[in-house]
Amino acid sequence: MSGLQRIGTADIEPIALGATLLGTGGGGDPHVGALTARRLIRERGEVPVRPAESLTAEDFVVPIGMIGAPSVANESIASLDEFTGVLDALREATGRVPTALMPIEIGGGNSLVPIAAAAAAGLPVVDADAMGRAFPEAQMVTFHLAGYGPGTAAMVDHLGNRVVLDAVSGPWSERLARAVTVEMGGTATMCDYAYPGDVTRECAIPGTLSLAHSLGKALTDNDVRGGERLQGLLRRLDGHLLFEGKIVHLDRRFSAGFTRGEAQLEGLGDHRGQELTIRFQNEFLIAHRDGALAAVTPDLIAVLDQVTSAPVTTENLAYGARVHVIAMPCDERWRTPRGIAEAGPAHFGYQEEYRPVEELAGTAAMSTRQEAR
Amino acid sequence: MSGLQRIGTADIEPIALGATLLGTGGGGDPHVGALTARRLIRERGEVPVRPAESLTAEDFVVPIGMIGAPSVANESIASLDEFTGVLDALREATGRVPTALMPIEIGGGNSLVPIAAAAAAGLPVVDADAMGRAFPEAQMVTFHLAGYGPGTAAMVDHLGNRVVLDAVSGPWSERLARAVTVEMGGTATMCDYAYPGDVTRECAIPGTLSLAHSLGKALTDNDVRGGERLQGLLRRLDGHLLFEGKIVHLDRRFSAGFTRGEAQLEGLGDHRGQELTIRFQNEFLIAHRDGALAAVTPDLIAVLDQVTSAPVTTENLAYGARVHVIAMPCDERWRTPRGIAEAGPAHFGYQEEYRPVEELAGTAAMSTRQEAR
Repeated sequence: MSGLQRIGTADIEPIALGATLLGTGGGGDPHVGALTARRLIRERGEVPVRPAESLTAEDFVVPIGMIGAPSVANESIASLDEFTGVLDALREATGRVPTALMPIEIGGGNSLVPIAAAAAAGLPVVDADAMGRAFPEAQMVTFHLAGYGPGTAAMVDHLGNRVVLDAVSGPWSERLARAVTVEMGGTATMCDYAYPGDVTRECAIPGTLSLAHSLGKALTDNDVRGGERLQGLLRRLDGHLLFEGKIVHLDRRFSAGFTRGEAQLEGLGDHRGQELTIRFQNEFLIAHRDGALAAVTPDLIAVLDQVTSAPVTTENLAYGARVHVIAMPCDERWRTPRGIAEAGPAHFGYQEEYRPVEELAGTAAMSTRQEAR
Repeated sequence: MSGLQRIGTADIEPIALGATLLGTGGGGDPHVGALTARRLIRERGEVPVRPAESLTAEDFVVPIGMIGAPSVANESIASLDEFTGVLDALREATGRVPTALMPIEIGGGNSLVPIAAAAAAGLPVVDADAMGRAFPEAQMVTFHLAGYGPGTAAMVDHLGNRVVLDAVSGPWSERLARAVTVEMGGTATMCDYAYPGDVTRECAIPGTLSLAHSLGKALTDNDVRGGERLQGLLRRLDGHLLFEGKIVHLDRRFSAGFTRGEAQLEGLGDHRGQELTIRFQNEFLIAHRDGALAAVTPDLIAVLDQVTSAPVTTENLAYGARVHVIAMPCDERWRTPRGIAEAGPAHFGYQEEYRPVEELAGTAAMSTRQEAR
């Protein structure tokens, strides 16, 4: 796969769509981010893309994104002032001038914020991110897995309040930033894990903007029929179809800076008579089919519209919607003991042990075959 | 009254005692602050005192104190590292080097923190503060009344987490700082309203460290009998005795970064058969005698031990304790419409209109006389 070279207005829609899929229901709403990114690219020009491998110690790479609950971010649109403000705050606090911006996570909104901010600042964006998906907490990044702290973090809100954090650890930075976010009204623009390019090159997951772009292209390819599109996505992502069904119960609330809740689905098609429950905290975290574990964080769970295969965010889940639920393996770094400790089921208070989605899918397939005998 | 010139170890006890009286029950526990201040003065030498009138535009005056609930601060002693850390954070964020420190409020602990920090940093302390008493919220300062914002504020905790705030207003700085304080475990060391000396000279209430020192001297004068000591204090502060009684009910809790609650007293002596209720949020805010308003913020309410006249903090109120409750006029700046709006009863959710303590005392005296006819 040859990577993206530049991002123009026509690239925003596919990136938004593909990143929403990789964002596992979170990572911010793509629509607002797409509007802002397209407007700024129109006004300021296309955004050059730098592969992660091109970064050197002379670079200063600044991840930028939204923190908070998507429910709130949708109603409180980040403005140009916030992008400029947060970059100014970080530059003033560190004395270093950014040479490139980067998504902290690949998610609908948060893949687009750095593109919009890069257009505004006249900077390139790095084709990489620090999660390879979206996660709800700020320390769930590959920098943290590699032993790097959050560094100096900057936050701004729509009123112009600025907060600079120098926390003793990633979890402390998350804790302080989350409390500030709640006071800021539930959403804020944030930069953290800003590092010289050699550190970013070591830590970041490369190629994820290009991957999102290419997935988005596939999702909008009108020459492909729905069923084939889904099969193509699953092949491409080593993914597994967990369920086909209808949302029959939805509990979603805004709590302590997150969108939390669960959705219950009733089976359709091959899954008629079965049920699936998905629990989420900004992102989809765990799915049970007929009470048995079907997939769990850090593996990726996505909900797709049954007809279009368009990804559905936790925020846009709707009662009665007919969907496919799929799951995909996460980056290998999240499957290490440290990765599972940081972002696995126990961290979120679930009793289940982590099991890779392909193993769970194999067991399910086997038990289905056994039942069929 | 000639002001303090230098602060030595022998001055700490009287300042602590007098400031606790002016701190109206809050402003931090004096014991821990006194230990730290005495130790640092012993190690580093006496602290020079600068009168507020000596400040010029070349000065950079940094108020420093504890934020949070005294209940927690008592158990989490601010260390030298915190004083150094918060001053470093402010210097790095503003690019300005402090020439003097100042209490943000006159309260038991918070009059001593700047003295301890000044000893540690080799700086003078300004004989002034920004409240003329203690108040629970960070924007309740004379800078705010005069239209000055909080400027760049810095906070540190005992773990070494540092937060720098550039809020759009005093109330926003309070709101963000309070949320950070709660995450930091309920208490933090903070600098805000750091200004060039001409602004500080314009805004600060002068002479309050000297006043605290002199009140503390009077309180520890063993040649004076208890009753005379109380009468002397009331004369000195234009104060009024609201009540003599015993604490028969106490409700005190730690909530959202504050120590909140109320105490009910049963009358003794001349007040036998009467009752008094005092409500507090870190500081004593409102007192009702037999259901009628007796004194209310921004005027000062203090609770004194019946025998020694030693001031009792909200944190040290104890069931069964026999006390005098007194009230004193606040600085005239708090009696302006703006002052009453910012720190009067309505701000704290009380229905009562503000009425000066001397007026309330006059009314009470008159009604007592009428009843006596």
